[in-house]
Amino acid sequence: MIVKGKSYRTIWLSDDKWSVNIINQLALPHQFIIRRLKTLEDAADAIATMKVRGAPLIGATAAYGICLALRKEASNSRLFSAAETLLDTRPTAVNLQWAVNKMLNLIKKIPESDRERRISVAYHGASQICEKDVIACKKIGKYGLKLIQSIHNANKKNRINILTHCNAGWLAAVDYGTALAPIYAAHESGLPIHVWVDETRPRNQGASLTAWELGQQGISHTVIVDNAGGHLMQKGEVDLCITGTDRTASNGDVCNKIGTYLKALAAKDTNVPFYVALPESTIDWSMKSGVDHIPIEERDAEEVTHIEGYTKEGSLSKVRLVPTDSLAINPSFDVTPAKFITALITDRGVCKAKKSSLKLLYRR
Amino acid sequence: MIVKGKSYRTIWLSDDKWSVNIINQLALPHQFIIRRLKTLEDAADAIATMKVRGAPLIGATAAYGICLALRKEASNSRLFSAAETLLDTRPTAVNLQWAVNKMLNLIKKIPESDRERRISVAYHGASQICEKDVIACKKIGKYGLKLIQSIHNANKKNRINILTHCNAGWLAAVDYGTALAPIYAAHESGLPIHVWVDETRPRNQGASLTAWELGQQGISHTVIVDNAGGHLMQKGEVDLCITGTDRTASNGDVCNKIGTYLKALAAKDTNVPFYVALPESTIDWSMKSGVDHIPIEERDAEEVTHIEGYTKEGSLSKVRLVPTDSLAINPSFDVTPAKFITALITDRGVCKAKKSSLKLLYRR
Repeated sequence: MIVKGKSYRTIWLSDDKWSVNIINQLALPHQFIIRRLKTLEDAADAIATMKVRGAPLIGATAAYGICLALRKEASNSRLFSAAETLLDTRPTAVNLQWAVNKMLNLIKKIPESDRERRISVAYHGASQICEKDVIACKKIGKYGLKLIQSIHNANKKNRINILTHCNAGWLAAVDYGTALAPIYAAHESGLPIHVWVDETRPRNQGASLTAWELGQQGISHTVIVDNAGGHLMQKGEVDLCITGTDRTASNGDVCNKIGTYLKALAAKDTNVPFYVALPESTIDWSMKSGVDHIPIEERDAEEVTHIEGYTKEGSLSKVRLVPTDSLAINPSFDVTPAKFITALITDRGVCKAKKSSLKLLYRR
Repeated sequence: MIVKGKSYRTIWLSDDKWSVNIINQLALPHQFIIRRLKTLEDAADAIATMKVRGAPLIGATAAYGICLALRKEASNSRLFSAAETLLDTRPTAVNLQWAVNKMLNLIKKIPESDRERRISVAYHGASQICEKDVIACKKIGKYGLKLIQSIHNANKKNRINILTHCNAGWLAAVDYGTALAPIYAAHESGLPIHVWVDETRPRNQGASLTAWELGQQGISHTVIVDNAGGHLMQKGEVDLCITGTDRTASNGDVCNKIGTYLKALAAKDTNVPFYVALPESTIDWSMKSGVDHIPIEERDAEEVTHIEGYTKEGSLSKVRLVPTDSLAINPSFDVTPAKFITALITDRGVCKAKKSSLKLLYRR
């Protein structure tokens, strides 16, 4: 996507053809900073500290993390320990496992002694994961656009209001995004889109990333607190919701950023269509249902008790929001049962959030 | 309630017997500051800027605002313009209208010429509003305690987890609070209470006021982001919810802090009892239903785009959370339809959230 007139992806090879560039998403929306990853540890740190985040981008970064590890040492033991290091960074998004396993399967086939070939296959594999994600997101955009178009045709209003939670835009993927891909496609096709951006506490990916993304592309949007979406739906101010997912169980339950479930409940109560956009890489075919089985990441309580922002003087400052002696907890994802999801927007088309429909689409 | 070993209410007459002391709630939880109101304008400003907030306390402050206005000039024209100034401060909580009308009715009966008597009746009236609120909250505590006790008896768990949204504690009333009164009563009676405190964006009354209140009383509590409550309910970590209300329609719909509706939906979906606590003064008997008719205050967007907290260096600092060119809106209340409310906990007892039950209780 375009940033200040220049085209970017979220992850790309440096000119040296081996180190990996990312956008440091912790600095957004206040600063646009590119960071160079040179080691496995750099990649693992970028994922764990959320310099990169979003299910597809976590997968892509992990794939390049394997490449960086192999450059140092191409043995199987190094390969497996690198995989473990990466898998330990974040537990919920299944793309991480998916990408790491894909890389392991590619590399294991090549003899340990053939260092050069192991490395070149790894870089090719990582690049393929990125390219395929871009294609998948483009397709999600295409299928989602049709849905938006048909809702617009039915409503006959002069504005289409779409609510989204967290950031499932191009910053969460390699390009285009999942939930935002249909929005970009709709904007490009001239539809009068307006996006309600949930700020998405505690890490405010909506307020800081989604709002920034949409602003850069010139798309009309309004930031709201996470509490406000239900009220807007009651008042007829939301025509549809689209979110991403970090792990989709085979029955269609989706695990996404904490608070997604609450929006799905409100959408159901107010008859607002609730869509979840995803590439195949977020489907965990082995997971029969979401609520009881998907591991929910618990992050540091300080993400709740403190918040960082930009001061009037133009510097980043972290402030405390709660009394010094109050505890906090920070579950980072929740599960939205399939029954609250109108449909899934996938890279293969739109389908019901249920096992038989997903299987049919992906011929599993 | 007790603050640092000393007993306080949220509003009281100064030693001079005419000016009015309040706790400046904007400074909590970081600082405990008492502020003296000397004029009508001081009172109106305290309500509008939320130095005092919470439906019952807004009413009590407005009542004293009338007293302060009359001290300056006791004429009817002054009385009515003072009433208008106060009514204009905040539109949603009905207690404001209720208290102002109560004061007008008392004072109008006395001849304009009898300045001294007008003033003394006004101060007596304001003090009565406060005393009655304290009694009502105590009763809410008593009735709510029985509910908590019965849920605890049925669950047989070693901890009772109560979720609350916003602040409907003693800081929102004159003493004890509405939603927190049952929690204080339960704690006092030795029940093993633990409170999930929704931070309650955008103004974070949960993180700053409820957490502070509970901490001062030694009650176990954990602050969570507003997004987290549904997940905790899905996981069986919430035994009941109690919130307050700023206006209760006669059909039992309640209008409370933005986001309350989302928690009620999650409670319904997960079979968690959802209670709303209120004194009679928050019932708007003339309001047939809530969703379509209760006016929803729209506050400054800066409450969403910026947040204030305490720096490591020990000073208050306001930081910006969103890109400079992103818009925000800030609806401050939402309406929870009666069908999602298990019961209302009132000063007359517990009843269903419906017209006939409310009428029976209040003999209307």
